[in-house]
Amino acid sequence: MTDLLIRNTRPMGGAPQDILIRDGRIATIGTGLAAEDVRVEDAAGAIAIPTLVDAHTHLDKTTWGMPWYTGRKGGALQDLIDNERNSRIPLGLDVHRQSMRHAIQLIENGTGHIRSHVDIDTDHGLSLLEGKLQTRDALKHGVEIQIVAFPQSGLMVRPGTYELLDEALAMGADVVGGLDPSSMDRDPKASLDAIFRLAQKHGKPIDIHLHEYGELGAFTLEEIIARTLAHGMQGLVGVSHCFCLGMPDPHRVGPLMDAVAKADIRIFTTGHPSAEVPSPQDMRAAGIKVGMGCDGIRDTWGPWGQPDMLHRARIVGMKNRMRRDDELELLLDVASRGGAEAMGLEAPGLVVGGPGDLTLVAGETLAHAVVEEAPRPLVVKRGRVVARSGKLVLPGVVMP
Amino acid sequence: MTDLLIRNTRPMGGAPQDILIRDGRIATIGTGLAAEDVRVEDAAGAIAIPTLVDAHTHLDKTTWGMPWYTGRKGGALQDLIDNERNSRIPLGLDVHRQSMRHAIQLIENGTGHIRSHVDIDTDHGLSLLEGKLQTRDALKHGVEIQIVAFPQSGLMVRPGTYELLDEALAMGADVVGGLDPSSMDRDPKASLDAIFRLAQKHGKPIDIHLHEYGELGAFTLEEIIARTLAHGMQGLVGVSHCFCLGMPDPHRVGPLMDAVAKADIRIFTTGHPSAEVPSPQDMRAAGIKVGMGCDGIRDTWGPWGQPDMLHRARIVGMKNRMRRDDELELLLDVASRGGAEAMGLEAPGLVVGGPGDLTLVAGETLAHAVVEEAPRPLVVKRGRVVARSGKLVLPGVVMP
Ligand SMILES: [Zn+2]
Ligand SMILES: [Zn+2]
Repeated sequence: MTDLLIRNTRPMGGAPQDILIRDGRIATIGTGLAAEDVRVEDAAGAIAIPTLVDAHTHLDKTTWGMPWYTGRKGGALQDLIDNERNSRIPLGLDVHRQSMRHAIQLIENGTGHIRSHVDIDTDHGLSLLEGKLQTRDALKHGVEIQIVAFPQSGLMVRPGTYELLDEALAMGADVVGGLDPSSMDRDPKASLDAIFRLAQKHGKPIDIHLHEYGELGAFTLEEIIARTLAHGMQGLVGVSHCFCLGMPDPHRVGPLMDAVAKADIRIFTTGHPSAEVPSPQDMRAAGIKVGMGCDGIRDTWGPWGQPDMLHRARIVGMKNRMRRDDELELLLDVASRGGAEAMGLEAPGLVVGGPGDLTLVAGETLAHAVVEEAPRPLVVKRGRVVARSGKLVLPGVVMP
Repeated sequence: MTDLLIRNTRPMGGAPQDILIRDGRIATIGTGLAAEDVRVEDAAGAIAIPTLVDAHTHLDKTTWGMPWYTGRKGGALQDLIDNERNSRIPLGLDVHRQSMRHAIQLIENGTGHIRSHVDIDTDHGLSLLEGKLQTRDALKHGVEIQIVAFPQSGLMVRPGTYELLDEALAMGADVVGGLDPSSMDRDPKASLDAIFRLAQKHGKPIDIHLHEYGELGAFTLEEIIARTLAHGMQGLVGVSHCFCLGMPDPHRVGPLMDAVAKADIRIFTTGHPSAEVPSPQDMRAAGIKVGMGCDGIRDTWGPWGQPDMLHRARIVGMKNRMRRDDELELLLDVASRGGAEAMGLEAPGLVVGGPGDLTLVAGETLAHAVVEEAPRPLVVKRGRVVARSGKLVLPGVVMP
């Protein structure tokens, strides 16, 4: 069923309204709506927001539901990458099962779109992608999943990875990924040229993990900007983390943000709690389209996080000194409508004609809803009730 | 009743044991314990930890349970202080009621000791202290509350505050507070001399909020160290936040930490998500006794936080790049036994003869318990069950 009448909800915290969804799209918003042929839900005055959007995660990495993982390492990024790659098989980290566990919790917490990066490396070939394609299909009525084919163990430093990425994109991956072209791949020119070549060949957008700090990150970012403009790929390139835009030097960061905005490069932040991060307020002010993601949750890298975009919004907000209601509303917008826009999707919004994707949240106001730790009363995807009181109610989902 | 037999619990995540508490103290730990005259609780294999300790909070500032507060401000520390002082009466921020709401949640989440700072200023006189003394008494069987008389609006810059602090200490405040002797009080020598004079006069310990960054904070800290040694107050002086020990310069921070350890000054961290913070790992390695606190929760300053020390431990852990199980165990120790030790209390510990203060937590291991978001199955204070499944069961508590 993709027709639904939601009575007595407060869109964006405003006055109570009814929302009628027909064929998966919002048909009418008003008061005293009646429709005899549709399912009716009483929102009991709860606030409705556009569906939440997890614009950066790694569904298959989580150990959720498995025995507690005791093997986490300290050390450099390379050590964490190697630990994960070497642990997947001995641990029994089944991609489809773990991705289902992760994605279902995201749905239960009101998420209608996910961008998930999947590791493509010469140890695992395309097996991780295959598992994630299964998850995408199994949950297609509950959430839309974009898959980024992502060289987690390096592209230039692992011969054979380019060909695997090429295959992954032909198999159904939606986005070309990249990883630290300078610090990890040690050859930024070749690495970025390869990524843009794949994007051009497959007609697909790009999303590059850029953890590089300070001036090194700024250098790589400048190279990404140059190629975005040279290939006319404005609006089709994303950079995840982009810690360099969190440098404490406003004279360096301001012009860089302006250049990112001009090339219409999208930034995906996770508000990393122990790194410099770009300010969502400043990026928005510069005109950059910004998305937010939960990143890895309880995986071999780290024990932290929850598969919940409101939980992540709190981390991003605390990190970026947000306090006022208008700042919390900006956070919520980045975690929902803004994230979809940054991913190049039709932005969900509670407007007539828009997608029937919405989430009811607990709280008196939008700002209150960001901080309140409570289950989502109702989650609606294209007019279908997919979760209620924090529990999946999507029919036909079979757990692996 | 202060006798209790807890069956089938795993102390610190170890093998299942029974714990017998007699007269509020742990009498026996073993297997197959029997006692006919005591209440018995089945822990069903849950991990037991020593009671959690919130070593830095402001119980009376929270707006929890009141209509959503929309008046938060950006700007400098002084603006936030003024906003709060001017808002208390118009908002109807009743100290006893709000402190009860806050402290009860801390009990429900397994907290047996609280150190709460209470504002002493010339607008409110001692009225805030009076409210908090009521709360301390009303909850005395559920949690032990230390009260810090704290010049939130400044000491030297507000004539009359010194005399009020003097009275507050005579009325029952346990600790002499202070606030940024350089940046707020603009007269570090006079401010610190006044604080130490009060401490000497009343024979009470000190806990100074030190938000001052970098070299300014280091200067003030050096002055605190000098006075601690001069007055022979080793073990009786605490510094809260102490952001200057989070400076990125190890050559400056290392010797400062050594000096803090040598003067046996205790550091209370809240892991502030958008400031430099001192590393608990490094402080412990230097031999400093460290406590952890939730600080203000959903107050006029900011919307963030939960009255739950495991929630705070996660914030502190994420902030300080902790990932491994041993790091999470250190976090938990700081949030429980270590915090009590830093506050100068008999440290709770699951040992025969120790206080019968313990909390059951969800999770397979201690590290898992830190990250798992779940209610505490059982909270025990001096052998009395005070909360069960995250709900207060303490008899005789009357909400104002
Ligand atoms: Zn990532
Ligand atoms: Zn404080």
